[in-house]
Amino acid sequence: MAEAVEKLTKKSEDPSKWYLQLVRMAKLADYGPVRGTFAIRPYGFEIWERVQRDLDDRFKATGHKNAYFPLLIPESYLKKEAEHVEGFDPELAWVTIGGREELEERLAIRPTSESIICDFYKNWIQSYRDLPILINQWCNVLRWEKVTRPFLRTSEFLWQEGHTVHATAEEARAETLQMLNVYQDCFHEAMAIPVLTGVKSPSERFAGAVETFTCEALMGDGRALQAATSHDLGQNFAKAFDITFLDEQQERVHPYQTSWGFSTRTIGGLILVHGDDRGLKLPPRIAPTQAVVVPIWRGNNKGEVRREAEALYSELKDAGLRMEVDLDEEHSPGWKFNEHELRGVPVRVELGPKDIEKGQAVLVRRDTREKEFVDRKELAVRLQALMGEIQENMLRQAAAFRHENTRQAESYDEFKEIIAEKRGFVVAPWDGTAETEQKIKDDTKATIRLLPFERQDGEDLVSGKPGQTAVFARAY
Amino acid sequence: MAEAVEKLTKKSEDPSKWYLQLVRMAKLADYGPVRGTFAIRPYGFEIWERVQRDLDDRFKATGHKNAYFPLLIPESYLKKEAEHVEGFDPELAWVTIGGREELEERLAIRPTSESIICDFYKNWIQSYRDLPILINQWCNVLRWEKVTRPFLRTSEFLWQEGHTVHATAEEARAETLQMLNVYQDCFHEAMAIPVLTGVKSPSERFAGAVETFTCEALMGDGRALQAATSHDLGQNFAKAFDITFLDEQQERVHPYQTSWGFSTRTIGGLILVHGDDRGLKLPPRIAPTQAVVVPIWRGNNKGEVRREAEALYSELKDAGLRMEVDLDEEHSPGWKFNEHELRGVPVRVELGPKDIEKGQAVLVRRDTREKEFVDRKELAVRLQALMGEIQENMLRQAAAFRHENTRQAESYDEFKEIIAEKRGFVVAPWDGTAETEQKIKDDTKATIRLLPFERQDGEDLVSGKPGQTAVFARAY
Ligand SMILES: [Zn+2]
Ligand SMILES: [Zn+2]
Repeated sequence: MAEAVEKLTKKSEDPSKWYLQLVRMAKLADYGPVRGTFAIRPYGFEIWERVQRDLDDRFKATGHKNAYFPLLIPESYLKKEAEHVEGFDPELAWVTIGGREELEERLAIRPTSESIICDFYKNWIQSYRDLPILINQWCNVLRWEKVTRPFLRTSEFLWQEGHTVHATAEEARAETLQMLNVYQDCFHEAMAIPVLTGVKSPSERFAGAVETFTCEALMGDGRALQAATSHDLGQNFAKAFDITFLDEQQERVHPYQTSWGFSTRTIGGLILVHGDDRGLKLPPRIAPTQAVVVPIWRGNNKGEVRREAEALYSELKDAGLRMEVDLDEEHSPGWKFNEHELRGVPVRVELGPKDIEKGQAVLVRRDTREKEFVDRKELAVRLQALMGEIQENMLRQAAAFRHENTRQAESYDEFKEIIAEKRGFVVAPWDGTAETEQKIKDDTKATIRLLPFERQDGEDLVSGKPGQTAVFARAY
Repeated sequence: MAEAVEKLTKKSEDPSKWYLQLVRMAKLADYGPVRGTFAIRPYGFEIWERVQRDLDDRFKATGHKNAYFPLLIPESYLKKEAEHVEGFDPELAWVTIGGREELEERLAIRPTSESIICDFYKNWIQSYRDLPILINQWCNVLRWEKVTRPFLRTSEFLWQEGHTVHATAEEARAETLQMLNVYQDCFHEAMAIPVLTGVKSPSERFAGAVETFTCEALMGDGRALQAATSHDLGQNFAKAFDITFLDEQQERVHPYQTSWGFSTRTIGGLILVHGDDRGLKLPPRIAPTQAVVVPIWRGNNKGEVRREAEALYSELKDAGLRMEVDLDEEHSPGWKFNEHELRGVPVRVELGPKDIEKGQAVLVRRDTREKEFVDRKELAVRLQALMGEIQENMLRQAAAFRHENTRQAESYDEFKEIIAEKRGFVVAPWDGTAETEQKIKDDTKATIRLLPFERQDGEDLVSGKPGQTAVFARAY
């Protein structure tokens, strides 16, 4: 693998090649036999597990419970909400044979679960006393994709989908926004990814929603990633699936629904936001290994250094840090340094004979590559503090990058120039029509990522008509 | 729901009807629109989550990592291991259309993942340095079933499947047995279900395995449930999928594999083992709610009792217990007692005006229905201790039931009589032939659940030939 590390394409030279190589070399994922399917390997999955745990705790803290709904959705269910089926139909995979028999009605593998869940909710909801329903599901979904890329766009992916039901429109809207904030907190606090939040334009709205809210992140190559979305479904699904309840006035009315999702796609975002020419860079909060002890020995002192490295490893592990010790005898320390940098381990702890003599160890940060000599007695405390510092610094760095790559465009020419040469987020007024939105997309491949919550008025750069500020970018 | 509780069929009268009613009334699961599919509702799912966490911790403590492999398996992959496809083919669901196009090769929804995982392992394993591979996956699987019952037999179900690869046959066998013990520990310590462990007869072996080990539990109605299995796959899959590695002598050889699984089926076992005429009975270790505070008020003291109940709830929750407080004003205390007994909550904490006056509360155990008056100041400590006592007592009760329902048969007539009249486990020698095994099944519907690890010789009751002791039962 020494050669492999050296051969990692530079991110700045070819981000796309860099990405694919890194996913393979860091053993995050691997291609499956069916187009667009992948295995998430243990190292990649452990990152996902930590993100998942972080989010799940936040869901439970806001009163949600997990449940599980069926994978297969009868075609007739999908068809009940017209916009919904129109949006998903081109991407469906159909089961037509079960138990050696042709099925009377074909069954879609869920691309998302609104339709099947509504069928259950219809029976579970009778009275206002049954509301709100606050349920989340962690599961796999499938959308047949033509062009795929590990994590970022795969036919099958893992996600969570929240599905809630409320008595009033206000409550549903509040829930939608609450979950958008939950996502934002997870991105900021766990993944060190700054995200913009706002409203989607109607053309980018979830199929069947009355309003879609989004978290948009800026990748290292200047392209945007829709990182998570939260939908206010209004009464659309309740009407289509005939969900009703008796309200306090004993009238039978339709409830209001929300849905919100966060997927393994975000792992792709994590790679793209933080990674650099040396490989991955993982925020300590979700890194499977927070620090790795690399002993530096020669033939004559190997025994002692090895013993000390193992002792140090145990000591730090007992202090609550997620540790590894690299006792491999085949590779040089330099090879190991590269390898653990490629894997994005936040801190390397070097320990050589001189360090042992002096009662110290050397800490090397992955984020800044700064070196620090620390007294053995203070090592655990220092490492714990360093985890917080690295976590904060990574968010700060990503926020600074985003700040530098967010530009106001004063004219359509400038808009086109920025998108062509610098990418990043471009802030410009939009007249609210699908026509200008489409023209901009045709001309530049940039789309409206979101409309900020704080409305700012201005003249549309294309039509000259009055409009409000939107954030544009080319997106993944 | 008061009427519903009263109407729960008696377990002793019609265990099958009792089971279905209880699953619905306790809101554990609900039927889906496709035959054999179910939603696991929040209360049922929370039980599963706790079992899952318990098992996952045990897997990680024994060195395993989680990963995720694709849902869809090309037909050609399934066909590579002849016995394997023969075993699963009748139960497969096939995807034949994806993204509006007829697929060139049809894709099965995984019934289990050996074949697709072997395809990845083939690439991940090159040298003995890559071994062992110790990977587990939590996922959904699908087996088209004709007769289904929530949890116990469903077309789609949730499970974990461990898939490991080893350099030697001895190591693979040791792993297979280790994981059998992990399952046994989870059943005993978390679920309070005593299980017998042993070897399956060849006819009950996993399709493609060289040996299958099993955990068998005895349900309250005297039928057995295969609760979890661990398979020594030998080199069967490695040969079929051409997985090889360079061993330390630089020779290219096939590795040895294992697989082992534990599913939501066990939730059905949990219901059947512990449930009684009043409903569910949950072991404290995995109960979503360990104790529920039920205030007993009249019109004139409602305010005070309510406040005290809320305070008590917070106090006990802060002490680390999973608590609920039932402040509903629509139902009587008696109705609530029934309801929480139906839901299997291990302890009810009653609090009335007299209790408040005396500075006490009343604890009522779900397992024995014993009442206890406890000083408020000692309540948290007493409840914590009670959790351990109930957990132990439930295991003891289930073990005593199994002991009473495990019988030696001295003749084939006696064997048939026990199975027909008493059910339970029947211990009898078996000559090791598929013929006597089949005859017993035809005559009595009883099958060999396992061959105990401690071999005991004897004469087969049917053929009179020498054999070894087997444990028979009618099974779910
Ligand atoms: Zn209507
Ligand atoms: Zn071979």
